[in-house]
Amino acid sequence: MKIARFSHQGGIAFGIIDDDALVVLKGDPMFGGFEPTGERVALSGAKLLAPVIPRSKVVAVGKNYHDHAAEMGGVAPTDPLLFLKPNTSVVGPGDAIVLPPQSSQVEHEGELAIVIGKIAKNVAAADADAYIFGYTVANDVTARDLQHADGQWARAKGFDTFCPIGPVIETEFDLESATIETRVNGSIRQSGELTDMVHDVAAIVEYASSVWTLLPGDIILTGTPAGVGPIVASDIVEVEISGIGILSNPVVRP
Amino acid sequence: MKIARFSHQGGIAFGIIDDDALVVLKGDPMFGGFEPTGERVALSGAKLLAPVIPRSKVVAVGKNYHDHAAEMGGVAPTDPLLFLKPNTSVVGPGDAIVLPPQSSQVEHEGELAIVIGKIAKNVAAADADAYIFGYTVANDVTARDLQHADGQWARAKGFDTFCPIGPVIETEFDLESATIETRVNGSIRQSGELTDMVHDVAAIVEYASSVWTLLPGDIILTGTPAGVGPIVASDIVEVEISGIGILSNPVVRP
Repeated sequence: MKIARFSHQGGIAFGIIDDDALVVLKGDPMFGGFEPTGERVALSGAKLLAPVIPRSKVVAVGKNYHDHAAEMGGVAPTDPLLFLKPNTSVVGPGDAIVLPPQSSQVEHEGELAIVIGKIAKNVAAADADAYIFGYTVANDVTARDLQHADGQWARAKGFDTFCPIGPVIETEFDLESATIETRVNGSIRQSGELTDMVHDVAAIVEYASSVWTLLPGDIILTGTPAGVGPIVASDIVEVEISGIGILSNPVVRP
Repeated sequence: MKIARFSHQGGIAFGIIDDDALVVLKGDPMFGGFEPTGERVALSGAKLLAPVIPRSKVVAVGKNYHDHAAEMGGVAPTDPLLFLKPNTSVVGPGDAIVLPPQSSQVEHEGELAIVIGKIAKNVAAADADAYIFGYTVANDVTARDLQHADGQWARAKGFDTFCPIGPVIETEFDLESATIETRVNGSIRQSGELTDMVHDVAAIVEYASSVWTLLPGDIILTGTPAGVGPIVASDIVEVEISGIGILSNPVVRP
């Protein structure tokens, strides 16, 4: 199932995508299940929002594809290299990525994001699936110049609007045959297979949950393949994962 | 005023400390003001909790005292060096700091924490006070071995229980004459004056709010003076800031 979160009657609702319609649900399916209200809304007219707002953590994994580690001048680390983005960086499909005045080199990083569905602490890799609500598409937007200048990545990857996610959460995603592609103004910049991850989804959940308690709604960005590069004002950035959808965001400089 | 958050009648309440009593408030004073319910509770019998649970960010500033930057083998950076701890690392006064099996070198870092009270974005240093709800005491617990091994600090400083805060929020704190002291089993390990910060509170709020939107309840740890060192199972760590109080936490290895 593809779950969307969208503006509805002055508030926010969740829905299951059914062809060209949204089957409106009673409450948040992460906590309340998948009970329909009986209402259907046209998908074409709906304003989709970030499919989840993490109550606690946006975890991300650095250098998790060999080809990207190489283009950054290094190798993939033996263990997952974890960092955090704040939940204030999360925006939804169609929302603007706002270039901050502090940076002159902002780059896209298309990624698969795991959406945690249950409280997870010390979860074994073999049990990871039971804690995953679904998957969505993410762009780990990065001020590359500030990333190098600071050493710590919290600022460079944490600006408001630097974590677009969406358009939906796919609860039955099979990544074995899935591809990820990032396009800027229609030109392909990044292209890879999700099975090329150094540390796979189960290993990441095991490792991250050995450090901190993951809460329902936390997301984990799983790293980006090679081809990261700059985005500038007026660009349109699309990250597409086959089987989930296309996350499209315009870039603006205020 | 000193504001405490505490266990009360099976739930959580907020109170103002008045001598040896808590004046119970209607709701969270950060959002609802300081209206008393009329009830008083003995302070001695109350289980105090972390005085705030950040809904979004625990921001921290690295190397913000010259003597600590020197003991870490460096100098204080020109701009505040920001990093993030997750809200799942926050515990309250008296709660255990749990040593994780991944580390053999966990250290204390006593710090002053700013508690943000209003949505803050691009706040000028001169206006910072208007966005600060108050101040509390924090311990930026750090797995020093993992901090060096990872490069990124999110894991080493982010384990569950690695951000004790409390015991109260002081809304009228004057840091000009205040001192900070960290003791382990009664022995002084860190001692400093808050005016020795490289980047002061107003500068930190200006800088942090130029990067991300700070939300009410977000906290900012302002850095630690020299004298960081190991804590081991059965230790009692106390961080005291004159004018706020003593944050005391036992250390356990499960």
